[in-house]
Amino acid sequence: MSEKLNENRYLEDILNRFSDKSAVIGIIGMGYVGQPLALRFSEIGFKVIGYDIDSNKVDMLNGGTSEIEHIANADIAKAVAAGFECTRDFSRISEADTAIICVPTPLNAYREPDLSFVIATCDAIAPYLRPGQVVSLESTTYPGTTDEEILPRVTRNGLIAGESVFVVYSPEREDPGNADFTTHTIPKVVGGHTANCLKVGSALYSTAIDKIVPVSSNRAAEMTKLLENIHRAVNIGLVNEMKIVADAMGIDIFEVIDAAATKPFGFTPYYPGPGLGGHCIPIDPFYLTWKAREYGLHTRFIELSGEINHAMPEYVMGKLVTGLNARKKALNGSRILVLGISYKKNVDDMRESPSVQVMELIRNAGGEIAYSDPHVPAFPKMREHSFNLSSVALTPDSLAAFDAVVLTTDHAAFDYEMIREHSALIIDSRGVYRTPSDTIIKA
Amino acid sequence: MSEKLNENRYLEDILNRFSDKSAVIGIIGMGYVGQPLALRFSEIGFKVIGYDIDSNKVDMLNGGTSEIEHIANADIAKAVAAGFECTRDFSRISEADTAIICVPTPLNAYREPDLSFVIATCDAIAPYLRPGQVVSLESTTYPGTTDEEILPRVTRNGLIAGESVFVVYSPEREDPGNADFTTHTIPKVVGGHTANCLKVGSALYSTAIDKIVPVSSNRAAEMTKLLENIHRAVNIGLVNEMKIVADAMGIDIFEVIDAAATKPFGFTPYYPGPGLGGHCIPIDPFYLTWKAREYGLHTRFIELSGEINHAMPEYVMGKLVTGLNARKKALNGSRILVLGISYKKNVDDMRESPSVQVMELIRNAGGEIAYSDPHVPAFPKMREHSFNLSSVALTPDSLAAFDAVVLTTDHAAFDYEMIREHSALIIDSRGVYRTPSDTIIKA
Repeated sequence: MSEKLNENRYLEDILNRFSDKSAVIGIIGMGYVGQPLALRFSEIGFKVIGYDIDSNKVDMLNGGTSEIEHIANADIAKAVAAGFECTRDFSRISEADTAIICVPTPLNAYREPDLSFVIATCDAIAPYLRPGQVVSLESTTYPGTTDEEILPRVTRNGLIAGESVFVVYSPEREDPGNADFTTHTIPKVVGGHTANCLKVGSALYSTAIDKIVPVSSNRAAEMTKLLENIHRAVNIGLVNEMKIVADAMGIDIFEVIDAAATKPFGFTPYYPGPGLGGHCIPIDPFYLTWKAREYGLHTRFIELSGEINHAMPEYVMGKLVTGLNARKKALNGSRILVLGISYKKNVDDMRESPSVQVMELIRNAGGEIAYSDPHVPAFPKMREHSFNLSSVALTPDSLAAFDAVVLTTDHAAFDYEMIREHSALIIDSRGVYRTPSDTIIKA
Repeated sequence: MSEKLNENRYLEDILNRFSDKSAVIGIIGMGYVGQPLALRFSEIGFKVIGYDIDSNKVDMLNGGTSEIEHIANADIAKAVAAGFECTRDFSRISEADTAIICVPTPLNAYREPDLSFVIATCDAIAPYLRPGQVVSLESTTYPGTTDEEILPRVTRNGLIAGESVFVVYSPEREDPGNADFTTHTIPKVVGGHTANCLKVGSALYSTAIDKIVPVSSNRAAEMTKLLENIHRAVNIGLVNEMKIVADAMGIDIFEVIDAAATKPFGFTPYYPGPGLGGHCIPIDPFYLTWKAREYGLHTRFIELSGEINHAMPEYVMGKLVTGLNARKKALNGSRILVLGISYKKNVDDMRESPSVQVMELIRNAGGEIAYSDPHVPAFPKMREHSFNLSSVALTPDSLAAFDAVVLTTDHAAFDYEMIREHSALIIDSRGVYRTPSDTIIKA
């Protein structure tokens, strides 16, 4: 009886603290996901503490600035003024009522899940957890992660899931650069380890997010996020394959996709490109591939998409070599300008950008490489790529100095008419130029 | 100069005849595509002649009735009263201003395009074509068909494409059972062999269809239709594969798809099932596969989808055998009721229905097979399948007499609560039942 009362005490207490906004929202990982979420909770009146291992990032945020282009410094400064603070001290998780984990889940060199950031986070906070807290994982991962990896760690010191700690999985759905939606207008899927965990998780997020979508388990929530990204990876893989087939038949795949998109049911347009980029689509699907092996299953669509999408930078290269060759030029020694090097349009995010792969292929073949990207003034320090380059300003003269330009990311800021007019040869991997022309090759 | 005038004469004449509705609309093939199109042209005031090789169908239509469930006899009768007539006499194509070809394009036993109906149609009308007519192919087919197969046949007797005959490809987009759209509200893609062909094709269809989508070539129009259906086949293949993976992990894929569908961008829900059915999705993609070989290319997504979707009836069978086995029953000798045998919900269309494949698998394994389908009172005569069965009326008693029911097509007319209550075992391949239960197995 007393135990039952005890359980209800933690549950009711945390629900009340969400409801009267006295709860302190702790968010671990101050990146593309953690920052907007912290701003949202701060904006609606919660005290927010951000935790990160990067002292530079912590200092910047405490100073009211963000290194992320699409997050306004003014919004950070406003949150700081309202009490938002960042720290590298993970023992301070005891001050928070929630531990919302927003750390990266990359792949290792063998396309296997790298949960090291998630595990390190759990190990760092576990000694400081106290009864009544919520631990919510937002990082994309395979079904079973929360129950198999998070749960044992956060209950190590005697906390009981659903009674004295609430273990939740709620996948992030951030879409940087999407002007139509923002953190609170994107419905949020929530799973819990027990019914009480789900209740608390839903209460936590419903303070900040317009619409909560509860599902029956953490596994179902984990699978939901993977399905979203697998769907995208496969559909992009499909149109990339269709591009190659259509091109061989003398058909413009972009015209075909636009025409198909006029069907008012049963078709959704996806567009081909120079490969897959970003921190989600090229990576997440392989989390399921890895886990499925435990069940003796192959995820054949995922593997096929990976293969085809991965080959697209080579395809673009092939079109460049062909175009130069028709002008009696070798790539070796030619001056090549790559247009747009972030992984998608109108953002500065370079993670897994296929443009960089195209740049490397060109450099490896002896091309003199340059790039222009209004969102990336200087080529950033990346773990696996290195170019000592700054963005070339686009003018009629600068364009005319190159043997070819390769359009890999179709930023809205580019002056496409000027580019068309002054480039000797354009390799267009984004379908920007629809009218056939002697100087434009669709890739 | 006189030739130029001549050309303009045919062009202007036919455009005028569409504009003042004095043109006679000839439509060849009075099936799922031809009938609604004929009704639409008749409805807006054109004289329409339908051509078909099936005397039974011709007699029925001339008598004011249709054998297609979702086409109302009253609409046929109204058209007949307004002058619509059908004939088996293809020489009468000379009476029409258009030859709109809506005949089947199936696959042969080796998954190769079977253009025999298209070719036979062209050969039958070619001797009777006269200057000034439009020949428009609506059948789904590989890129190049219209220009490579139709054009030489219709110009055999001296007609010149774009001058004295207008050669068009405009894919049908009929979706039987779709209550939201009808023939004239579905935008229509149109390609032409020449600019004049496209002009005439667009004029023809814009009399009857709200929105015309002109594309740059017949090939582009042919590819558009294929892409629409390939997109669907691949997405259904993907969720079928995901269903198998999720099932192994103890996750309900239908719950996951519904949750993913709450993402307001970047995701479109497709649902798994017992296999692919209908006259389009299982067939059309392989038209591209076949043509791509000419270019040394493989269409790997299409082939993977075909393989996975084709294996789904076996998957459903496996779930049935497992469910019976858990009840210490063998399939051999068990009484099995299949619910819904048309290829999709709320229609009577049996073409390529995976339910029939499930029925055959059960029969081959010694199961005593019965079916219930409110849209298919008696099992129809099919080329490759034979069952001497009538639809079983669903009552508590009739349901209780079966060892298992296999839900393959989720018609709205079924009383799912009664089915749940009185069935010993339900194999649900459509995700109708979401709450876990001892008598329901998701398949």
